Amino acid sequence: MVLDNINSPKDLKELSIDELNVLCQEIRDCLIKKLSVRGGHCAPNLGMVEMSVAMHRVFNSPEDRIIFDVSHQCYPHKILTGRKEAFLNADKYSDVSGYTEPSESEHDHFIIGHTSTSVSLASGVAKARDLKHENYNVIAVIGDGSLSGGEAFEGLDYAAELNSNMIVVVNDNQMSIAENHGGIYRNLALLRETNGCAECNLFKAMGFDYRYVADGNNVEALINCFNEVKDIDHPIVLHINTIKGKGYKPAENNKEGWHYCGAFDIESGEPVKGKEGGIDYQTLTADYLLEKMKHDERVVAITAGTPTVMGFNAERREKAGKQFIDVGIAEEHAVALASGIASNGGKPVFGVYSTFIQRAYDQISQDLCINNNPATILVFWGSLGAMNDVTHLCFFDIPLLSNIPNLVYLAPTCLEEYTAMLNWSIGQDKYPVAIRVPAGKEAVNVVNIEKNYDILNRYKIIDEGNDVAIIAVGSYFSLGERVAATLKNKHNITPTLINPRYISGIDSKVLNSLKDNHKVVITLEDGVVDGGFGEKISRFYGSSKMRVLNFGAKKEFVDRYNIKEFLKANRLTEELIVEDIINCLKNS
Amino acid sequence: MVLDNINSPKDLKELSIDELNVLCQEIRDCLIKKLSVRGGHCAPNLGMVEMSVAMHRVFNSPEDRIIFDVSHQCYPHKILTGRKEAFLNADKYSDVSGYTEPSESEHDHFIIGHTSTSVSLASGVAKARDLKHENYNVIAVIGDGSLSGGEAFEGLDYAAELNSNMIVVVNDNQMSIAENHGGIYRNLALLRETNGCAECNLFKAMGFDYRYVADGNNVEALINCFNEVKDIDHPIVLHINTIKGKGYKPAENNKEGWHYCGAFDIESGEPVKGKEGGIDYQTLTADYLLEKMKHDERVVAITAGTPTVMGFNAERREKAGKQFIDVGIAEEHAVALASGIASNGGKPVFGVYSTFIQRAYDQISQDLCINNNPATILVFWGSLGAMNDVTHLCFFDIPLLSNIPNLVYLAPTCLEEYTAMLNWSIGQDKYPVAIRVPAGKEAVNVVNIEKNYDILNRYKIIDEGNDVAIIAVGSYFSLGERVAATLKNKHNITPTLINPRYISGIDSKVLNSLKDNHKVVITLEDGVVDGGFGEKISRFYGSSKMRVLNFGAKKEFVDRYNIKEFLKANRLTEELIVEDIINCLKNS
Repeated sequence: MVLDNINSPKDLKELSIDELNVLCQEIRDCLIKKLSVRGGHCAPNLGMVEMSVAMHRVFNSPEDRIIFDVSHQCYPHKILTGRKEAFLNADKYSDVSGYTEPSESEHDHFIIGHTSTSVSLASGVAKARDLKHENYNVIAVIGDGSLSGGEAFEGLDYAAELNSNMIVVVNDNQMSIAENHGGIYRNLALLRETNGCAECNLFKAMGFDYRYVADGNNVEALINCFNEVKDIDHPIVLHINTIKGKGYKPAENNKEGWHYCGAFDIESGEPVKGKEGGIDYQTLTADYLLEKMKHDERVVAITAGTPTVMGFNAERREKAGKQFIDVGIAEEHAVALASGIASNGGKPVFGVYSTFIQRAYDQISQDLCINNNPATILVFWGSLGAMNDVTHLCFFDIPLLSNIPNLVYLAPTCLEEYTAMLNWSIGQDKYPVAIRVPAGKEAVNVVNIEKNYDILNRYKIIDEGNDVAIIAVGSYFSLGERVAATLKNKHNITPTLINPRYISGIDSKVLNSLKDNHKVVITLEDGVVDGGFGEKISRFYGSSKMRVLNFGAKKEFVDRYNIKEFLKANRLTEELIVEDIINCLKNS
Repeated sequence: MVLDNINSPKDLKELSIDELNVLCQEIRDCLIKKLSVRGGHCAPNLGMVEMSVAMHRVFNSPEDRIIFDVSHQCYPHKILTGRKEAFLNADKYSDVSGYTEPSESEHDHFIIGHTSTSVSLASGVAKARDLKHENYNVIAVIGDGSLSGGEAFEGLDYAAELNSNMIVVVNDNQMSIAENHGGIYRNLALLRETNGCAECNLFKAMGFDYRYVADGNNVEALINCFNEVKDIDHPIVLHINTIKGKGYKPAENNKEGWHYCGAFDIESGEPVKGKEGGIDYQTLTADYLLEKMKHDERVVAITAGTPTVMGFNAERREKAGKQFIDVGIAEEHAVALASGIASNGGKPVFGVYSTFIQRAYDQISQDLCINNNPATILVFWGSLGAMNDVTHLCFFDIPLLSNIPNLVYLAPTCLEEYTAMLNWSIGQDKYPVAIRVPAGKEAVNVVNIEKNYDILNRYKIIDEGNDVAIIAVGSYFSLGERVAATLKNKHNITPTLINPRYISGIDSKVLNSLKDNHKVVITLEDGVVDGGFGEKISRFYGSSKMRVLNFGAKKEFVDRYNIKEFLKANRLTEELIVEDIINCLKNS
């Protein structure tokens, strides 16, 4: 294999075009093979093979800095920069992360998983270069839907005015995660149609020099283009047209479905594992909303580039018609749009992964909550056990959302309660509401689900006991049930078990009532403990003799952790929780 | 006066152009008069007089919805929509807020004070209109620097694809708060130079229809333009060239200085009140940084459109040269840029008001802190006593920043400690650091300021005592001193007084040491208590018998509050704090 001799980008320098083409095929084959076993970002990387080879052929990484946006397009780059074993050798598949990672290689400059960041970061690298009077190329690689994010625009707006070398590679694969949305993509289409010659050019309008490469999967064309712009003394956009999923038919034919994949059979493209069991909150949400939409044309579902977060696959999007909006990767707009719709009598429901809701803090606070508009935000996968890449952690949403005034943040414990809360939220016109969609798939003891949540901050006592009270939030209600059972069975303590339902407020009445016959109150939340729900309970009881233990994760960035070990380290197992309670009782 | 007969926009409909011109002059005179007494956003409103008159002449507000960006350009609109008394009658000057406010008038649709929001919000209003099969104009009024914010771009990207009425008025006054920065403003300049005819047109590139009005302070020209686009069936941008500060020479000549003004003498344009006494942290910061820059060309100061937040007026910007960057209103980019610069060996210092740092949560978390790059963020005016408009509250930064892993959030108590921390932060290369610049102007008891903050989360015991410990954060250290003095003088209690210095972490050693001879620990923070510093102390002591009281403001949106009453309501006066401590001691 040509790849056998590629251990660093230097090894590309002497290869012929024919050899480079062979190399591309080898990289593609090894990508498909690894992805078929381990899953990962599939179509974005398949489209980037030739560009990665050509960039490393022409530029001198790491002296020249190649900075990937969102960085889920960096697998070929990893293969070319000394990490091929993690793609060729099944035993080493776990050796590298799915994103750029400076600790793995000097060819990676940032850990990046959220989108739209590369131009800003690269312009910072370029600015530092200029301040230090150094001299090398800085290349930002953006695309795959990232252009619609406001940060990308802010970065372009600034980078256009750098009076020095700055190369922005726009990988135009005509897709976001789902199809592209927004005016900017019309301009990209116009530029593709005119072979880059249209006068009306967004990048030129912003002040960039500009070049178009029609066949972004042609190594030779790419090398020529990169050679021409290498060491350029001003900012330029290279608009490169690639095929997402290139070289693997199932992915080329269904680019959205193959954006990220699980393990699959290479021959057929069929997934090899069935879906995980349990409750599929995402599909159930879409079906619920579609039913609502039928009867009320004011109901509208909104996504920021990830429609399947709430089950809206292409078929359901078709059904929803104008009542479904994909704004592209643009969470800030999604929130403000929802506020605008709600202000004018519509019923918007914005579904978003926990890790991405943090992209719109200011809009939630200002555009939505100060205005107190009754929009609904559904926060999916809010849990310690969701995505475990450091860039996609889903456990900071409670501190983020619950400390914004006016926002009602609800934590349903199960499907029935979730549906009741969603139904209430869509029906009411008093509050901005966020709902932390349950992440657990365990069944919980469902009784007397309430329909009306108008009167805020009422915790529900599920089982009355004494000595110990367990306040178990949302997904962790089942953990609370198990802790309660263990206390009863092993320690002869009958604890009080509480479903607080409202994450964003305190039920003084219930909390005060516990003072009579309880010594210890514990809180369980499926998220980071710093700034979260439990601390508010600690504050409440601060002036009393009640002992309080807050269970949740320590504030830290963790990467690709083993969830079992992680929970143990944070004393979040049933046994360790019970142990801490017993110790606390002894000392109280 | 023509204005005498204007009580609603309807009253404009029958006026002649001459009468409208007289009206504009009357509005301008009354604006200047009120501003000379009360201060406020001056130059932006002076430029908007004719446009406001023309909009209300042509469109039928409130049926047609006029939605202002940032909304500090809405004074003429307020005068025309039934609120002129608040501008004409000195006794009623306080009757209206400085921003659009739906509770004041049916002609206002959102409370908005942060920028770049109008297109998103308006597109939501338009979407709801379409879902409900209604029919009226929706007009977003953006400009005055707001275009550079990512949310504006996300909104434009979406709005361009609305297949229905959507009018985006771009008020191009050639300025941000300071001069404009970024590639987009070059395109606006090109369009101005070509009378709107240049082929390379950012708005057309995004898919908008487009019109240019060269004289945006000409009522007749504006009326003609608005009449032509009224009831249009697709999205259009009206690019309107206005003069910021129009009609008041000092403001026309110094647009930046007159963006916002205090009381002034109309004749001379000189401020009537001298500067407030006390320490000017903003100017001192600029002078400190300029001195640093001289000796180290890697030091670079960054602002997002508000250079004077850290004292960089035009003269100091000139001195700093390439070591000062104004990215325009683009906080996300400012943070990512700082991370990029720091990653490549530069020493970036981003200065920002507390209320605006929340616009970049995701970038602080992802672009900066996951990557652990040693950039410095200076958070100014973080205090309950800073800006008191609901849209500009400066007291949510502690929950926002202190719960992000890796970020070291420091709270200096005085100028000497601030300088030491800033000096350390610029010199070190281990941590992303934010510093909450002191907001208080009281002198505090400064002894032995430390130079090195490398070892994190070490609280400093200033006075050792017993029974009560006071942990007083940053600006509230002087309040802690006063509480300590009162406890001593009136109650014969000698409390321990602690300067925690690190907001973002716990000093277990110091906190544990207090357990021996203290019964009550109190925390004082100049911010919202929910999710903040104090709650972490409550959590720490939850399993012990220590009583803890957290002092800070309740989580709520408050508007134009009287600070004394506000502090009292939150039990944040010396007397009430001491009362609560004594009560807690009695019950413990």
